Amino acid sequence: SRPSTARRLSGRRHFTDNSKSTQHSCLLFTTNVRIIILGERIQRGLVIYICFFKGADEDLVPKIVNVLLNVKLSEDENGEYVSVLDLPGNVLIIPQATLGGKLKGRKMQYHTNIEKEKGMELYSQFVSLCEKELAANPKCMEAGVLVKHGTYGNRQVLKLDTNGPYTHLVEF
Amino acid sequence: SRPSTARRLSGRRHFTDNSKSTQHSCLLFTTNVRIIILGERIQRGLVIYICFFKGADEDLVPKIVNVLLNVKLSEDENGEYVSVLDLPGNVLIIPQATLGGKLKGRKMQYHTNIEKEKGMELYSQFVSLCEKELAANPKCMEAGVLVKHGTYGNRQVLKLDTNGPYTHLVEF
Repeated sequence: SRPSTARRLSGRRHFTDNSKSTQHSCLLFTTNVRIIILGERIQRGLVIYICFFKGADEDLVPKIVNVLLNVKLSEDENGEYVSVLDLPGNVLIIPQATLGGKLKGRKMQYHTNIEKEKGMELYSQFVSLCEKELAANPKCMEAGVLVKHGTYGNRQVLKLDTNGPYTHLVEF
Repeated sequence: SRPSTARRLSGRRHFTDNSKSTQHSCLLFTTNVRIIILGERIQRGLVIYICFFKGADEDLVPKIVNVLLNVKLSEDENGEYVSVLDLPGNVLIIPQATLGGKLKGRKMQYHTNIEKEKGMELYSQFVSLCEKELAANPKCMEAGVLVKHGTYGNRQVLKLDTNGPYTHLVEF
């Protein structure tokens, strides 16, 4: 499958074939973070499922937070799409290591997932930075919106009641 | 991003660089179908979010159905992972075009999604084949499990009450 092929051929994020005999260049990407955003059009906020892969590091965290808090996926009262910061809306973060699964025969394998300890560290940085960004945003402060989050490595109880699921995948 | 790069460089699913001067070969994948499986460990069944991309065709449908109904993602009473057919469990299918979104700046773009009419056709074939497979399975028939599905192109109301979300991504 793609991510493992990319890893096998090159540890670098981009692999460019510069040999003169070929007309094309090849870009092979490795996935460091996979995120599912369970948005929906009515409820005021985002549910973020996050999985870190081997290779993810601290430098990624501000980038991910910046994208997720600023991408325009929430419909406001005028039917315009705005960011969760601009809505302003709540953020629910759920660690979801199963997102790193790759189909092998009839089973899922998780060999490319990050080591548990490192994943826990990045997850915790991710949650803290989201909290910090919401706290630093006057609109969010005034509206009293919150970051809620699940515990890394544990089963999570989740109730989702949506009037139109609106699910996106983002990879870094 | 990866899928569009792959499409730009090659319309074929696999692109192999056979030029003699290079030691490696490049595999570039295009995504034809993206599926999120919202499983969970307690409730008896699978929720399948499906999005077809440009390039998806009828030949893919039996392959997808075969994988989804046979992949071992459901925990039975003995704590063993079995397929939804073997559980046996219900299948809820939700068309989710937003899964085809690609981040461009602060917005999502859906340029690589399949044309609506073709997507509707493939979705309908997908649902029918799932129904057929469950109906042909003695365990499923006996247990009275069902395929339920959302309507293509409409907003769906969804209540999900899970005691441990267990989410996987599968691409074809």
